[in-house]
Amino acid sequence: MTTLADAIFRPRAVALIGATADQAKNNARAQRVLKKSGYGGRILPINPKAAEIMGDAAYPDIRAAPGPIDHAFIMVPAAAVPDAIAGCVEAGVKVATLYSAGFAELGPEGRAAQDRIVAIAREGGMRLIGPNCLGLVNVTDGVPITNNAAVEAEDLRPGWLSVVSQSGSMMGALLSRAMSRGFTFAKLASLGNECDIGAGEMAEIMVEDEATRCVLMFLETLRDAPRLADAARRAHALGKPVIVYKLGRSDVGRAIAVSHTGAMVGADELAATFFRENGILRVETLEGLVELPRLVLGRIPPRGNRVAVLTGTGGGAAMVVDGVGLRGDVVVGPTPAMRERLAAQGIHISDSPLIDLPMGGGQGQYTTVLKELVASDHCDAVVAVLGSTARLRPGQVNENVLDVYDGSKPIAVFAAPQADEALRLLDAAGVAGFRTPETCADALHAFLNWRAPKPEETVPRAAWQDAAERLYAVGAPRLDEAQACAVFEALGIEGSGSRIVTTPEDAKGDYIGPVAIKLLSPDILHKTDAGLVRLDVESDAAIAATVAELLSIAHDQFPEARVKGVLVAPMHSGLAEVILGYRRDPEVGPVVMLGMGGVLAELKRSYCVRLAPVSEATALEMIAALPELQLIQGFRNLPRGDVAALARAIRAISLLACLDGAAVQEAEINPLIIRAEGKGVVAVDGLIALG
Amino acid sequence: MTTLADAIFRPRAVALIGATADQAKNNARAQRVLKKSGYGGRILPINPKAAEIMGDAAYPDIRAAPGPIDHAFIMVPAAAVPDAIAGCVEAGVKVATLYSAGFAELGPEGRAAQDRIVAIAREGGMRLIGPNCLGLVNVTDGVPITNNAAVEAEDLRPGWLSVVSQSGSMMGALLSRAMSRGFTFAKLASLGNECDIGAGEMAEIMVEDEATRCVLMFLETLRDAPRLADAARRAHALGKPVIVYKLGRSDVGRAIAVSHTGAMVGADELAATFFRENGILRVETLEGLVELPRLVLGRIPPRGNRVAVLTGTGGGAAMVVDGVGLRGDVVVGPTPAMRERLAAQGIHISDSPLIDLPMGGGQGQYTTVLKELVASDHCDAVVAVLGSTARLRPGQVNENVLDVYDGSKPIAVFAAPQADEALRLLDAAGVAGFRTPETCADALHAFLNWRAPKPEETVPRAAWQDAAERLYAVGAPRLDEAQACAVFEALGIEGSGSRIVTTPEDAKGDYIGPVAIKLLSPDILHKTDAGLVRLDVESDAAIAATVAELLSIAHDQFPEARVKGVLVAPMHSGLAEVILGYRRDPEVGPVVMLGMGGVLAELKRSYCVRLAPVSEATALEMIAALPELQLIQGFRNLPRGDVAALARAIRAISLLACLDGAAVQEAEINPLIIRAEGKGVVAVDGLIALG
Repeated sequence: MTTLADAIFRPRAVALIGATADQAKNNARAQRVLKKSGYGGRILPINPKAAEIMGDAAYPDIRAAPGPIDHAFIMVPAAAVPDAIAGCVEAGVKVATLYSAGFAELGPEGRAAQDRIVAIAREGGMRLIGPNCLGLVNVTDGVPITNNAAVEAEDLRPGWLSVVSQSGSMMGALLSRAMSRGFTFAKLASLGNECDIGAGEMAEIMVEDEATRCVLMFLETLRDAPRLADAARRAHALGKPVIVYKLGRSDVGRAIAVSHTGAMVGADELAATFFRENGILRVETLEGLVELPRLVLGRIPPRGNRVAVLTGTGGGAAMVVDGVGLRGDVVVGPTPAMRERLAAQGIHISDSPLIDLPMGGGQGQYTTVLKELVASDHCDAVVAVLGSTARLRPGQVNENVLDVYDGSKPIAVFAAPQADEALRLLDAAGVAGFRTPETCADALHAFLNWRAPKPEETVPRAAWQDAAERLYAVGAPRLDEAQACAVFEALGIEGSGSRIVTTPEDAKGDYIGPVAIKLLSPDILHKTDAGLVRLDVESDAAIAATVAELLSIAHDQFPEARVKGVLVAPMHSGLAEVILGYRRDPEVGPVVMLGMGGVLAELKRSYCVRLAPVSEATALEMIAALPELQLIQGFRNLPRGDVAALARAIRAISLLACLDGAAVQEAEINPLIIRAEGKGVVAVDGLIALG
Repeated sequence: MTTLADAIFRPRAVALIGATADQAKNNARAQRVLKKSGYGGRILPINPKAAEIMGDAAYPDIRAAPGPIDHAFIMVPAAAVPDAIAGCVEAGVKVATLYSAGFAELGPEGRAAQDRIVAIAREGGMRLIGPNCLGLVNVTDGVPITNNAAVEAEDLRPGWLSVVSQSGSMMGALLSRAMSRGFTFAKLASLGNECDIGAGEMAEIMVEDEATRCVLMFLETLRDAPRLADAARRAHALGKPVIVYKLGRSDVGRAIAVSHTGAMVGADELAATFFRENGILRVETLEGLVELPRLVLGRIPPRGNRVAVLTGTGGGAAMVVDGVGLRGDVVVGPTPAMRERLAAQGIHISDSPLIDLPMGGGQGQYTTVLKELVASDHCDAVVAVLGSTARLRPGQVNENVLDVYDGSKPIAVFAAPQADEALRLLDAAGVAGFRTPETCADALHAFLNWRAPKPEETVPRAAWQDAAERLYAVGAPRLDEAQACAVFEALGIEGSGSRIVTTPEDAKGDYIGPVAIKLLSPDILHKTDAGLVRLDVESDAAIAATVAELLSIAHDQFPEARVKGVLVAPMHSGLAEVILGYRRDPEVGPVVMLGMGGVLAELKRSYCVRLAPVSEATALEMIAALPELQLIQGFRNLPRGDVAALARAIRAISLLACLDGAAVQEAEINPLIIRAEGKGVVAVDGLIALG
């Protein structure tokens, strides 16, 4: 039985639809590259005008070619693609890779054309890679199915890195950059528009690939996050690190990535959260993507983010230390016990975080200290910085680093001078070497903050059943404030105690203190701006008058709006205000967001986001991430707020992720008022929108 | 007449104190390197035990060597250095470079030893470089005076880059990194502890050097900022860019840089301000230091920070765009007029900020668009991204970039694949090429934010004369609140209207509204914590009682403190509170700081710093840099504060920099209350400390 992985990477036959004998044309390359690789299967050029191309029998149509054909590489213009796909289906092709462009990347029309070819393939049970991709390479077995000029130019040697790239040209760029460092590959795939097989599914395939020991991903967007999460979890179980470089860290970069691939917008913080919680390492430098693997190969996530730094050159090491500090990781100096042990051997080091020793002389001091650091549990990784010897006597890395290194703890070696040969020797010995201080610090940061995938949590139905019922009972795509707050109350979040009144007479009640009065209508969105919210209203007479006034304004100014009445609620006060949000993000799925409330928060955003649902422990981490909330946690003896209740509320709103029926698209409590310790939190206002 | 520059870089004779015939020793290298370079002057090895070393006549003591000797390179142990220096003075040596270590880098004792050798040299009119440095190289004329192994190993060709490095090993590291890219040098100098000649003075010398067209600096700290500022201004006038990489961007990195060189602590923001205001370009990546020069050579600072991006590979360009966006620079798309002109030539591009065109095909579309971008004034720089062709057909950069480029606007070329040959071709043609997207964005940021040195301002004496007199009249190193506020008032900053009273009876007055009462004593620092500040006191009786109570607390609890009385001041309120600070920083000199006031500011710092004095226009820029101050500038129709008065107050406090007599070390107004538009600002409390 041919698996999908076999059909993609080890097909028995490859049809090249749009093959040509004209060697000046791009379309000739796929066949040339396959032949050069010594591919053992059948090559089937498809071209209506040739009987033979490059020595292989050619066929006018794939329907005429002899089967079985596992894989077709389609290079014809967009207009001819639907027929090519239909032909592939008829010929029993298992997977077609589309080099052809002119689909979703062009806009709505292209998107429609793409949807049509996907429909044909789905109908016929055939899988698609691309369109607008450069194909893929199985380096392990010598099977390139690609038009990529880089693949043709490089002399590929099989190795253990595999690459999933949405960008075709970056697949080639990574190839050339890694090869110039002597790094080798198992499988590479470019995915283009991902109309069918996406980065997550391809990562799954790579992770199961025997030759692959580490998966590198170059991503512009996330189109199949749940599948990528699964792949990452499986990779973690198999001990194969997954490392990503993702575009879209800046607003403009995100816009570019999007317009380039026709994907949806997603904030970078969400992507970062997604990667972190699924045990995926993320680098922020391009070279980090090829240099990090050696540091993490065969390792498990560290316990902390502490790094010890040993150097033979002060200036060179200080650059790495600066980079580590800027990223929020911790440089730890030697322990007193270590200093004593070393002193007993005649090596006197200070307690400075940077251990600065000459490399050449000193009777092996450098190696003695390095051994101590690798054996010590006061740090999670060790940086060894090499000075001019790395360039002038590269072989010295053998005595200074490699001979004493037992592999028990990650070492990142940074060479201050240009030192290609020393880096090569290190890699050959399984030690990570870095060309620039920035990449070294970037890779260390990725490693030091790498954590196991967050355990999947089964939330008991009882925790959200009531909320689901209230939600489903509404039967509208958007809940009004009262309905939304009722759902939040069902999740265990205290509401404001509001009443809906429909006439001024109804409004009389036994309020203790002043009340807030607000028109209730699902059709009027900006009620404060419309003068439909009044605060601090006191006395029955004033309340009745205000209710009458709001109803009248609504009637006059929003004649079309459905008015459900007026909400009257006690005024609430507390020690701080936050915004609690929930969203089903199109890229990463359900997330929960805690942000500071108030007008200042609009000017200086302060928030923390996590994948939903979250535990109370995670909720407490979110609270700790907002500096402003230190104000209610004992800072300067100011009164303490009910942080435990806030954590429960964060957990509660995150449970909206469990409701699968009418999925909640967006929910927000704004403001959530935090009262003094032991007094709870109260949701003053809120909204819920369904998908 | 021999100038200092001649003595350093073109000495008629070089004495090598501590020379040895033992080629295995480091000390033999300086002579070997000088001989290999074909140095035309006399080489004078000084060694008490040899009559000849490497074919040169040796002398037991420099006093015995034949003159004139312009330069001595001292390699003896620290203990022998004072005599060597004394010998140099006697022999009429003009400058001595100290490879010898064991001075200020070791701590206070070493610092004292260093001060002693400086005293000997000063007395004798001799200049010093080092100690703890690796020497220097005049590549232009082939005069290396150094023990640096990198210098010996590399085959140096003369060029136009000059390097000033506090770190000796980094001088070598930069050399090897730049040479591997084919970049060449004029002069290089490592400065070690800078006991005499510092980075600023050496930069001055480099700037005046004829062969030097660009000065690169690797700095750990700033020891002679005013001189560096002068050098940078002179460099600007001569059209020679000065580019720095400075350590200490993180707290831990700063600590390291300091412990490594024995220098003082300085915050990175201050250094950044210093560089920006003096027209110095700063890079944050190591490779940026060697890759940026080509981009800025012969250029003047740009008007804006707008960059246009043209690419033949989407993924590769998006990385640069992301980096540009993250650094706050602006990626601009093509103008409508440009799109029309291109459309008329059959080239249809969208208004996306990223212009994505195939490089190879398209009948020269890439070059046509590039020409348009270079000629257009809608951008300050152009990024051209190269795809796989840069690796596979490097010569194509000639048709695609070089043939159409007239040099009128900076082009930064980023090659997505490994493309050494293409980068070499670009450099040879005078175009800046970048190896990584991060370095490309870093260098662009440095260029786009490069501004001419801030004009030196002559502040009329009348603006600060009164303040100076009040200050000098105090005659104490620390002014009390009343004295400090009087100085601020003399500068034009409204005070709180406080009175000093010494008895409860004095306290009676005709206050309108409540008052603040505070003990006045220069010896009690934390008055709030000590219960010596009371707010909102109303009625004559309560005021008198509070005054009595404060005097009594002070008498009982601080019997040693000088009590000058009690300050009684009206309570003030406004729309916002800021902290206004002034400081004579040990690294960069006088600076003025505007920060947010209040307890939240301690948790989430928000401030802006500039070199003092500042103009009102600069003060307005500082106000604009604090997001919280948007609240008093029309945000959401909130009431407007008196921003003009705030700007005047910032300008006023910055004038403390003009007072040269008893220099003010530190001054602070906290809080400065900002009232409504037209109502001014008021300094409620303040302090001034002299140097």
